[in-house]
Formats: sequence, structure tokens, C-alpha cells
Amino acid sequence: MTVRSAAIRVIVRVSTCNLGDGPGLATRYRCVVDLTARIGSGEGGFVLFAVTPPRRSTPAERLPKIANATIERLSHLDLDGLVLYDIDDESSRNPVERPFPFSPTVDPSEYRANHMHQWRTPVIVYRAVGKLQREDLRTWIEEQDPRHTLTVMVGAASSGALPAVSLADAQAMRADLNPGLLLGGVAIPERHSRRENEHLRLIAKQAAGCSFFVTQVVYDLNAAKDLVSDYRYACESRGIIPVPIVFTFSVCGSMKTLEFLRWLGVDVPRWIENDLRHAADPLAASLEQAVTTAGELIEYCRRLGVPFGINVESVSIRREEIEASVELATQLIRRIRT
Amino acid sequence: MTVRSAAIRVIVRVSTCNLGDGPGLATRYRCVVDLTARIGSGEGGFVLFAVTPPRRSTPAERLPKIANATIERLSHLDLDGLVLYDIDDESSRNPVERPFPFSPTVDPSEYRANHMHQWRTPVIVYRAVGKLQREDLRTWIEEQDPRHTLTVMVGAASSGALPAVSLADAQAMRADLNPGLLLGGVAIPERHSRRENEHLRLIAKQAAGCSFFVTQVVYDLNAAKDLVSDYRYACESRGIIPVPIVFTFSVCGSMKTLEFLRWLGVDVPRWIENDLRHAADPLAASLEQAVTTAGELIEYCRRLGVPFGINVESVSIRREEIEASVELATQLIRRIRT
Repeated sequence: MTVRSAAIRVIVRVSTCNLGDGPGLATRYRCVVDLTARIGSGEGGFVLFAVTPPRRSTPAERLPKIANATIERLSHLDLDGLVLYDIDDESSRNPVERPFPFSPTVDPSEYRANHMHQWRTPVIVYRAVGKLQREDLRTWIEEQDPRHTLTVMVGAASSGALPAVSLADAQAMRADLNPGLLLGGVAIPERHSRRENEHLRLIAKQAAGCSFFVTQVVYDLNAAKDLVSDYRYACESRGIIPVPIVFTFSVCGSMKTLEFLRWLGVDVPRWIENDLRHAADPLAASLEQAVTTAGELIEYCRRLGVPFGINVESVSIRREEIEASVELATQLIRRIRT
Repeated sequence: MTVRSAAIRVIVRVSTCNLGDGPGLATRYRCVVDLTARIGSGEGGFVLFAVTPPRRSTPAERLPKIANATIERLSHLDLDGLVLYDIDDESSRNPVERPFPFSPTVDPSEYRANHMHQWRTPVIVYRAVGKLQREDLRTWIEEQDPRHTLTVMVGAASSGALPAVSLADAQAMRADLNPGLLLGGVAIPERHSRRENEHLRLIAKQAAGCSFFVTQVVYDLNAAKDLVSDYRYACESRGIIPVPIVFTFSVCGSMKTLEFLRWLGVDVPRWIENDLRHAADPLAASLEQAVTTAGELIEYCRRLGVPFGINVESVSIRREEIEASVELATQLIRRIRT
């Protein structure tokens, strides 16, 4: 039996995995096999939700409550996995003042281990490798169980920084110490619009061990399609099989969120800015736009034969924006499974 | 009764206007009232098809055949009007070699009068005013029956050219000599992406008498939405009512067509270029993309309350691309009337 057909069988079984009475071990195991098996065999078709751990200044006794509230909010969704971001101070990358002041967040791996162990499906833990000491990263890589954990390694925010561990070092350590640990890389369609070589960066990351990519939030459909298309044909000409690209979507319900997205390098269209200033329900407009953009990318990737996943993130911590993100994930799960 | 409700009543009647045995006068009149009444009262919801007259080098005896073939091809569509382009040699605008060599075309007004008189709905005749002598333009404006003819006046291709009649002159002549003749202007979303003032140009053209706008071919959805959105809110802040924006769509089925679109200043995405080079059926992919983009713009304009129309053009003269354009118009008529 090929790996691909094994993974497909798992998908079929998984369709029943959330119908049980509780997260029993067998159920958990089947779910766990699902995302890792699919990415491991180069298949897409999964939906993730991305969470940023709380600020490090949060009182310790509040962390379990926050984690439980997140699990509670997301547990009724049929998510294939969770993403935990690792926030680095990117002010070295962007001289413009950060719209939200930078505040260090709890280490995603610690947050997961201490507070998110109730979460049933695999977790993709981001690692801003520039923040870590070599020994700490080594230990972390060695300790991870590849059935439950995947990682996305992110380099230092600015090429001017001199971190203890470079992205290339970290990628090599993963390949050496725990080659079964599935590694992802970031993909930035906006960078492709400007430099037209992001597809080649993805192929280089693939050679360094990446078996999936996660984009930053997508607002420019043509930029995302351009990247997928260039990547697919560059793979073909090199005899490489494309790996899943996970497209991230979000809602934008306030000017503050919009400013922050732009600060992060996302090209948010002017019409969304206008909607935010004038529309009766900008959050609903943004939700509708994200559903439509995702729908088009899904159709496009299917037509092109590039495996893909969906990731939904709430950029803001405002309750109504978080709830709209959950609604976005609900709609995209429905869309991707039909 | 308001003008708006009168126009709506006409629309209801028009739904039967192509079911008659032939283009009788009463039927023709009802159809004619429709497009002009709608634009005259600031309403959208119409679909046009744009045709470029044959080359001037075409033997005279072939012109009626070509015109009849066009009418035959389009008569089964329920089009609200026809657009006849006026092609100017734009090589002064773009130093890059023109992908298709420039070849003067039959004057659209002469072509319409001599060969397209069987066409049943109003015709929007483009006038590249820089090509005309003042007296000829004066006579043309005076002779037009505003019930059957509308016009889009286009200025000289390059600001370096010194034409006999400027666009401002031509607009003033229309207002003076035949104020009932509905005047349109061109709208270019790509220019808005670069300069962010196209919406103000539209408002200035509106002050010069324009009661509708026609875009060049739309491939960049965000650019088109940005323009509509900026235009709508700029109108609101000035107490102006937005006039219909007619979005032009086309299919692109060959590299030659793509090169030509780019030469004309249309931002055609790289993924469409890749499709053209690699896809099994690029024309089908381009058709699907145009339907989707148009559908999103239709929804967006409805939500924003900006009146809009749809214009379908065949950029290429290859038979399969023309047929795909007709299919595009068929699908968009269905879409806009539901």
C-alpha cells in the first residue's frame, strides 16, 4: 500500500472521529495520524486555527483559564490542527512605530505543554529561532513527538540581526536530530509581487527539509495565485512534487487591526480600509471577503493540482473579531470538505 | 412618478422584448428606452458587448457580411446595448513595440450607420477625439439621436500629442450642441493603483458631463474594488450621486492576446500567463476567472450601492476567443439578472 492511499484511508476514518462521546485515546490517535500523515504524504485538504499565546505579563493563574476558553471556543469546530505562533519583536524589520506595542508572549511550546494538553489534534508550533539559544533549540527538537507536533521555523525578522541560531542552522538541526518532525516554512505572496522569486525561496526551503508552507494573511488574491502558479510550474520543471501550501485568512474589523496587518507587511486593499471607516458592518464585509478569497484559492489550487490547507487566525484580541474568525473557520471547513 | 420607477417599469417590459418575431418599431423603441433611460436616471444593471469595427483595409463588399455575422452572433443574447470602439494609434503612449501592428479601423459611427442599422438596442459609439477635425466632430454630435446613441469620448493617447480637439473641448461641444446625448468616460483601475486619484478624475469628468464610465478590461479585482470604493465615498463627501460604472471583462486565450492586453496597460496576472503556457484549456480557465471576478464585483457594487453595468469585449479576433467572449456575456447576463 502506498503512503498516499494509507493517508486517504485515514481521512475516511477521521470523518467519524469527532462523533464519539469524548476524546478517547483511539479517537485521538486517529485524528493525530490524520494531519501528520497527510502532510507527510504531501496531501492537503486540512483546516487549522492559529492562536497567539498570552502575554508573558499575564498572571500565571489566568493562563489555564485562557487556554481552556480557547479550547472550548474551538472544540466544536472540526479542526485538523492548531497553530501556535511565536511572536518576535519585529521592530528591527520595520522602522514605523508598531500599532500595538510589542509585548513578549508565553513561549508557544511551554504554553502547549502546560496548558493546551487537552487539545485533541496535532499542534504546529512556530519557532522564532533567532530568539533561542542553540542548546535550548536542540533539546526542544529532540523532545518533540512527530505524531503530535509539527513546527514552522522562522528566521530572524531583519537580515541585520545576528541571532545565536540562524534559520539554516535550525533546519539542519531538525534534519539531524529529529527528521520525522514535520517542518514548515513561511510563504509571503506580497514578497512575490515585489521580487518575483518567492517560489524559488520555497523550493530552497523544501530542499532544506520543509514539507509544507504557511502564508501570512492573504488579502491579495492575484498575488497568492501568482505564487502558487509560479511554484507549481517551477516544481514541475525541476521534477519536484509540490508540498501543501497553507493559506492564512483573517478578518479585519477595526482600523487598529488594519494598521497592524499593514505593519506586518500585509497588503490590505484600500476598499477594506474604506469599509472600515464607513460601512455599517465592516466585520461582516471582511468575513465575506475572506470566505470569497479562500473559495477562489481553493478552486484554483484544485484546478492546478497543488495541495493546500487553510489556516484561520485572529489578528486582533477583540472578542467580536475572534468570534468572526471562528465563524470564518466554520464556513471554510464546510467549504473545504464539500 | 419618479424617473427611477419609470425606468424600472421599462426593465420589466423589456424582458419580453426579444421574444417577438422581429425587431418591430414598438419593440425597438422599448429596448431603446431601456439603456438610455437607465443611464439617464443613474441606474445600472445592464450588459453590453463591445466590438471593434473591421480594418479600413477590408474590401468594402465584405463589411456588410462581417456586420451581419456580428449581429447574428450576438442577437440571441439579451444585450442592452452594443459598444463600438474607435481605435487610435496609441504607439505615442507606449514606446514598446505593439504586439499586433496598428491598422486603422473603419470609423465606428460610419460602420454603425452603414452596416449595423439592424442592431436593435442602443449603441455606445467611442470617439477618439484627437483623430477628428473640430467641424467633423461638431456635425457628428449634432446629428446623433440620443434615444439610440450614446458616446464615450476618449482624449489623445499621450499628453505629448497636440490634437485638433482636446477632450475638454469635445465634452464642452457635446454639452452645448446636444446635451441629451449621454456621455461616458473611461475609468482605469490600474491607474488608480499607481496614482490613487482615478476616482477624482471620474468626479471631474462627471462635472464635465459624463453620466457613466467604462473601464478597461478588469483582471485585478482589488484595484477595481479600490476604485469603486474610493469613488463612492468621494461622491458621498461631495454630495454627488455616483453614476454607473461599466466594468469590462474579456477572455485571454493566447500569449499574443496577453501581450496585447499588457501593451494596452492592463495588469494581467502572472498566473494567467502561466496558465496560457501550461494549462490544458487556458481559454476555459480565463473564462472561469472572468466570470468569478465579475461576480465578485457585482456583489460588491450591490453592497456598496454603486450602480454598475457589464461590458464584454473580445480583445482578439480569433474565432475561439470570440466564442468564449459570447459565452462570457451569456453567463454574465444570467448572473446580473438574477
